[in-house]
Amino acid sequence: MIVYLNGVFKPLLEASLDPTDRGFLLGESVFETIRVEQAQPLEYEAHTRRLQASAAWLGVRCPGAAELLEVIQQTVDANGLAAARVRITLSPGSEPGGAPTLLVAALPIDDALLDRQRMAGWHALTVQEPVNERSSLRRHKCGSYLEQVRARRLAQANGADEALLLNTLGRVAECAMANLFAVLEGDLIATPPVEEGALPGVMRRRVLALADELGLDSAEVPLTPEDLRKAQELFATNVMIQVQPIVTLDGAAVGSGGPGSLTRQLFRAHRADVDRYLFEVRRG
Amino acid sequence: MIVYLNGVFKPLLEASLDPTDRGFLLGESVFETIRVEQAQPLEYEAHTRRLQASAAWLGVRCPGAAELLEVIQQTVDANGLAAARVRITLSPGSEPGGAPTLLVAALPIDDALLDRQRMAGWHALTVQEPVNERSSLRRHKCGSYLEQVRARRLAQANGADEALLLNTLGRVAECAMANLFAVLEGDLIATPPVEEGALPGVMRRRVLALADELGLDSAEVPLTPEDLRKAQELFATNVMIQVQPIVTLDGAAVGSGGPGSLTRQLFRAHRADVDRYLFEVRRG
Repeated sequence: MIVYLNGVFKPLLEASLDPTDRGFLLGESVFETIRVEQAQPLEYEAHTRRLQASAAWLGVRCPGAAELLEVIQQTVDANGLAAARVRITLSPGSEPGGAPTLLVAALPIDDALLDRQRMAGWHALTVQEPVNERSSLRRHKCGSYLEQVRARRLAQANGADEALLLNTLGRVAECAMANLFAVLEGDLIATPPVEEGALPGVMRRRVLALADELGLDSAEVPLTPEDLRKAQELFATNVMIQVQPIVTLDGAAVGSGGPGSLTRQLFRAHRADVDRYLFEVRRG
Repeated sequence: MIVYLNGVFKPLLEASLDPTDRGFLLGESVFETIRVEQAQPLEYEAHTRRLQASAAWLGVRCPGAAELLEVIQQTVDANGLAAARVRITLSPGSEPGGAPTLLVAALPIDDALLDRQRMAGWHALTVQEPVNERSSLRRHKCGSYLEQVRARRLAQANGADEALLLNTLGRVAECAMANLFAVLEGDLIATPPVEEGALPGVMRRRVLALADELGLDSAEVPLTPEDLRKAQELFATNVMIQVQPIVTLDGAAVGSGGPGSLTRQLFRAHRADVDRYLFEVRRG
């Protein structure tokens, strides 16, 4: 694997991070995970806008969108990939106010696996430890990510695919590594507002926009565990899984117990948009 | 600076961390900060006990106390130090279940600066964002530490020395990087229980034991901001600052506005214990 680290492309084995980097010692970093298809980063503007905002929040200089695009495409290319999961990590380096650390890495996407998961649906498990909806860390993709890592691991240790996180008020925040949507009575596509502890996800935003385009009702509203138990459909979103049906929650079937029809409609609409975008890019 | 990284002592500039270490990407690590005097780590048993517990919580193998002691002493020695702040950082490495990353670094202690701070007292500022007392991350010194870093920075940006953190119930948790004690009416030395969001600090435990030895009343009890406003004395504890008076909170004088007498008594008793311990170690 070739990575970009602080201006240089190198094999990972030769890339060397300062062990006193504040990203390592203190989890002081922000990151983005970007889906690249046909060498094109998808939703690039939304990703860079969020990264710039998070870098400002952290107090770290961030390269401009054009410079970063070049780095991303060269990293993907250097790894011989066309489709990739690109991880951008930005930390202040070893000293506040010093030279920031910028890491860009590209991994292949296993879309066959993601497709199988989408067909089968995920099993979700509510974790008991609440997340703090009043923490600004929840509104940024930051490298102090252990809470999410532990929640996902706990869910998987109990035979589930993903964790459902509640906030300190006992309401729904999101999944460990994805946003959560519920299709409620009357086909309302609902997701918790960021004030409830949901990360302002790029795919979450896309799904809300898609619902509009398709003439479906959607809303950012607080959701209770009871709302989820009565939901017709549940699905998780992030830019890698895109729109992922959840078929059981805490062992109980969601709706019919299979991927829901609105969930599938939103996924298809999203893919059609991506295909259109890539076609236009190719045409130049 | 010479650091120990994964079995090897090296100048920091030659020490190389894998940029895909989960400590860097995800804040997935635990750490200890140990005060070393006359080449002896103080409170070593308490530190290693907590590190072992946190490593188990993280699911990472941790070297035994004897092995780690050797590494600490060699690191301190390699840097030509007798007194040092030693930072042990342990992460799972690049893959869960793979080879863990163990970093040990030693920095000089500026005791003259710490003494001046102790004479002058700290100014503390309550930060508005609460911490989540129900998160298990608060009971471990873990590398997802950005919340604490930001709180401290916010306090300092506003002219204070340290931040006071409240929990989601509006009660006192601790300081950003230290535990908090209040001397209440009747000379009761009080500190919030860990269930309130306080880290189980090594110096916190020492102070509770010292209070017992000195025949002083002490208790782990929930504290409100109002309790702090009425306190006779406030002080912060961690193994580096030891017992640090707080002389103002949110701009208002604490007690007489200078370091409190019980605070100073506890510091002196602590130092006497340390001196006794070091004398005994030297005598063999």
